[in-house]
Order: sequence, then C-alpha cells, then structure tokens
Amino acid sequence: MQSQSSPLGEFDLIQRFFKTQSEAMLAANPRSVTLGIGDDCALLKAGPLEEIAITSDMLVSGRHFFADANPEWLGWKALAVNLSDLAAMGAKPLGFTLALALPDANPFWLEAFSKGLFAIANQYACPLIGGDTTAGPLNICITAFGSIPKEKAIRRSGALEGDDIWVSGTIGDARLTLAALRHEIELSQTDLALIEGRMHQPTPRIELGSALREIANSALDISDGLLGDLRHVLKQSRKDAEVFLDRLPKSATLLKQSLNTQNQYAASGGDDYELCFTAPTSQREAIAKISANLHLPLTQIGSIRPMQSSQPEISLIHQNGMKLSPQGASALLQSFDHFA
Amino acid sequence: MQSQSSPLGEFDLIQRFFKTQSEAMLAANPRSVTLGIGDDCALLKAGPLEEIAITSDMLVSGRHFFADANPEWLGWKALAVNLSDLAAMGAKPLGFTLALALPDANPFWLEAFSKGLFAIANQYACPLIGGDTTAGPLNICITAFGSIPKEKAIRRSGALEGDDIWVSGTIGDARLTLAALRHEIELSQTDLALIEGRMHQPTPRIELGSALREIANSALDISDGLLGDLRHVLKQSRKDAEVFLDRLPKSATLLKQSLNTQNQYAASGGDDYELCFTAPTSQREAIAKISANLHLPLTQIGSIRPMQSSQPEISLIHQNGMKLSPQGASALLQSFDHFA
Repeated sequence: MQSQSSPLGEFDLIQRFFKTQSEAMLAANPRSVTLGIGDDCALLKAGPLEEIAITSDMLVSGRHFFADANPEWLGWKALAVNLSDLAAMGAKPLGFTLALALPDANPFWLEAFSKGLFAIANQYACPLIGGDTTAGPLNICITAFGSIPKEKAIRRSGALEGDDIWVSGTIGDARLTLAALRHEIELSQTDLALIEGRMHQPTPRIELGSALREIANSALDISDGLLGDLRHVLKQSRKDAEVFLDRLPKSATLLKQSLNTQNQYAASGGDDYELCFTAPTSQREAIAKISANLHLPLTQIGSIRPMQSSQPEISLIHQNGMKLSPQGASALLQSFDHFA
Repeated sequence: MQSQSSPLGEFDLIQRFFKTQSEAMLAANPRSVTLGIGDDCALLKAGPLEEIAITSDMLVSGRHFFADANPEWLGWKALAVNLSDLAAMGAKPLGFTLALALPDANPFWLEAFSKGLFAIANQYACPLIGGDTTAGPLNICITAFGSIPKEKAIRRSGALEGDDIWVSGTIGDARLTLAALRHEIELSQTDLALIEGRMHQPTPRIELGSALREIANSALDISDGLLGDLRHVLKQSRKDAEVFLDRLPKSATLLKQSLNTQNQYAASGGDDYELCFTAPTSQREAIAKISANLHLPLTQIGSIRPMQSSQPEISLIHQNGMKLSPQGASALLQSFDHFA
C-alpha cells in the first residue's frame, strides 16, 4: 500500500522504475512469461502441462531481523518466507537459490544458519540448487521455484463479488512477539514461549495452497499485515471488501491483550505468513474438510463486495455490528512500507 | 579456487555448509532438478523438450563496485554478469528477478539504474518478471532464467583429453581499468576510454554460447580470472591443461603494458565475462565460422591433457616455449576469493 507521508514509497518506486518498463517488455514479447510483477510469484511456461512459479525475497540485518538474531532461525525464516509465496499461488516447491553476503566467514554462524535452512528445505523437499556468496553487510536473498499445473495458479486478481474472505491459522502473534522483544508490551516467559516461533520460524502453508487450487478464486500470503495485503487482492480484482473485526483469528496469548492491541496486531501486524484467500460461498463445506484434513483453522472473516469508487475500500465492522469510523479504520489500515 | 592463506575460503564455505547438504537432498530426491550447485547455472526440467537454466549473482557496494559508481553502469552490469552465466551454458534468456536493498529511495539514482538495467534487458529480450525491494546497505541480487533444449547445456564437466581450449574476445582490460582507477597504473584518457567499458558494461556472450551448444565439450564464463576459472573446468572434468601464455588474447591497450602486467591481468585479472570453452580439434573450422559470423575473435590458447595427479594442473608455457617455474606460475594462478 502506498504511504501518503513518504516522498517515494515502496510501491511507487517499483511502479515507476521497474513495473512500467517490465510490462512494456512483456507486452511486446509475451513468449514464455505467463505472469510478471505484482503477484506472490511470477509464472514461466514450462512445457505443455506445467508452469514454474518464481519468487524472490531479500532479508536485511536491522530491517527484517535483529543483527544478533539466532542464525538457525534466520536460515529457517529466509526460506520460509519464499515458500509462503509459493504456497499463496498453490505451487509445489522444486528448489531454491541462495545469495548470501556475509561480514566474515564465521563457521559457527554458518553452521547454525545452514542447519535451520536445511531443516525447512528437507521438510518441504525443496533442495538448494545454486547461488552466490560474497563478503558484505549481512544480506540473505533467496529465490524459490515451484511447479504448478498449467493455468491453475491462484492469482491476486481473481476475487469475485460475493466471495467469502478466509484466513488460515491465527494472525498477530509475530507482531506481539516483536512488541515483547522491544519491551513495548510485557509478556510472561510462558506466553512468549508459546508464540515466539510465529516470528522466528513461520510455517509456510504449502499443503493448504495446493488444496485450494481448485477452490479459491484469489489468494496471497500475509507478510505486511492482513488489511494492507488484502488491499492488493482488492486492487487487482477491482473489488471492495467487508471485514468483521471480531472474526479475526487470534491466539489465546493475543486474546489476553487489550482489544485495541488485538485488533491492531491481527489487522496490520504483519510477518504472519498465513494465507488470505477468497472463495465462493458454495465452497464452505470443501474448505471445512481441508481445515479438518490439515488440522489448520480456516476462518471466514468477511466478504468481497462490488467496487464503489476508483480505489478499493475495506469496510471494517466492529464487534457491535457498527462500521468503524474513518479514523479508527485508518489506524488499522496502515501497512508496512520499507521506505516510509 | 581455494585460497591456502584463508582460514575459510569461499569454495570451502560453500562446500562445507551448503553443497554437501544440497547434494544429499538431490541424491535422495532427484525429481525435477537436472543439475545443482557447481556450474554456471543450475538446471530444472521443464516439460519433455526443455530445461530451465538458473543463475544468481549478488553485487555489493565496496566489493563489486565503488560506492559512488555510475548507477546506469551498475544496472547494466548487474544483469550482464547473470546473462554471462546463461551464455556459458548455451541458454537463451527468458527473464530475471531483481532483489534490491537501497540506503534510501533516491529517484535520480533509481532512474539511472533502471535505464541501464532495461537497456541490456531489452537488448537481450530478457524481461524483469518479479523481485523485492527493501531499505538496507546497497545490494543488488539478480536471478536470471534461460531456456535450453533438453540435455544440450554445456557443462563444466565435459572437457575431453585433446580438446582445444578457447577464449572469446580479449581478456585483462577490466583489470587494467581497475588498476588505472586505483592509480596503480597510469593510463592516458584516450587509452582508458578505449577499455573502461569492459569493466563497467561487459557484453554477455549469449549468441556465442548458443552457437557452441553442438560444438563445445565444456564452457564457463571468466569472472574471477581465466586460469582460476579454467581450474573449475579441469577439476570437474578431471583433466590437466597446457596454456600458452603468448596466445592469451589482449587488447592493443593492454599490449602497451609490461609483459608481466599483460600476463598477470590476462591470466588472472577477472571481471572479463568472456567465455572459456573446450572443443575437439575437429571443430576448428566450425569455430572459425562462428567467429566470423559473430565478428568476435575466438582464440585457441591451449589444450586439455590427461590428469597426472589428484589435483588438476595447468602447465603454463612461456613465450620462449619453456614451461613457467612453479613460482612464476603460482603468481598467475591466484584467483579471486571473496573471503581471502
């Protein structure tokens, strides 16, 4: 989401210096690219039956993680956030490349990083296939590849009027962990232990993404915050949405916080790596079955509505059934902008 | 090439913390990956007729370029070094992702970077298809994709006894430019203008790589220095080599330098992005035709020999026909190690 206060926000920057030029090239020469910039993954054609989903994420010290972060968690998370993008399209992992800038070649750091990285790589049968290493300020760039049956990718642009909006798992715990580590909020050691894995070692919803391929009309993974990310779906689908705040799925630990904190963290905390997807109401039973099979809560939090103006709108419905005031909504609609 | 002086060199590090684990995963689960770590590109299967070549390079400020480097050149070079890896396998560009960490969102810098990036992207019909942007110390990570007919990729491991060793274009000018910019060597403005493009805006040898698919037994691109890179071919092909120093192809500008500087820069200067390839002597006429068609000098600089010990050896033959002393050879055999 574009930040009003920043002279040049992240999405402005991408649009102005990269996306416009990329779209011109793809339009002139469609050849082998099915989908370019703007979704969770790009799509390359691969033979008559398949497409290859591609996603790339760069993690920077001091921005995405603390400089003294546990390198084993970091190895896990660096691949997890990419697998989460594959999951959001419904792709099955094929492999990944790793480009790594390191201040020095510290074998203890590398041993732990490698352990975390290959733990998740093995769990999702996603082998490291290449990459690059260099000296420099710590920077981890992973590009991951997944396969998907031709034309079956779940895109951000497919939401239809009347679709239910769904969220997997619970959201807001990564933001609550960050608040506790920053001493913005006091959490007991027991409470912190229950939720900190959500920030350090997120679970990419690969099985869910695959199961949703024939069911969901649109999907994305929640990385910058639910409502900000949902706006990407609305913008690309040219739709509005209605979201019921009291339905946002929260952990028992988050539910101990003030209602304001609960809503803020669940609605716009970010770093959740759950999937947000939309599906026709006729799929409710199928979705309940997927939830039971995967032992993963799937919660209907709202509905897709026809677009009322040139910009997508999210109506936030309060616990009492009233629509939130513009000021109240605006606080929850803040999303993360790397350059704001 | 492994550096003897470093406690943990770049290739050690890759082997110990990444390559061993990657190979174990690929062996257990070959599925869709044709080739993993250790060549210019990895190879993914893509339908019955095709493979997708994948390469990733990370460029870091102060290491791969000066902090105040011209951003237009930087945009060009960041993609060029990846296209050069595609060229070395014989792949045709399909597209690339860009992950970019920026200290700030400076529109002047971005405008120029984007201009250089899309100039080369358009020249090689290689569209930007996705990526990531974040705040952080300047870091440019590009992952590029190319298509290649099934089982036709030119690998490092294919060199055969008796093969000629060939080099495209001229080598050593990027290193000479660096020496001039560092004031290690005095060059006239005219001389510098003739060669500095070799460092700032290298030309990936895409057409050459494609033309060599049915002709070369092995190939790689020269990024860390000819002899160091040739050792990768020898190691993977389990062969020795004989290289004639007076045949190394040099520009008129490099030929004005002392013979020692000429040999040092051409043999191990690096940043050349020419191709080094091996082919049977029966292909000499075909190679001469390719050279004429592409208006690109191709020079036979030596031959592949049977392996004499457990480590590959390069015999360097002097202008006078004598083999270089071990000390003389050792100075030329130094290759670039990011952690040395």
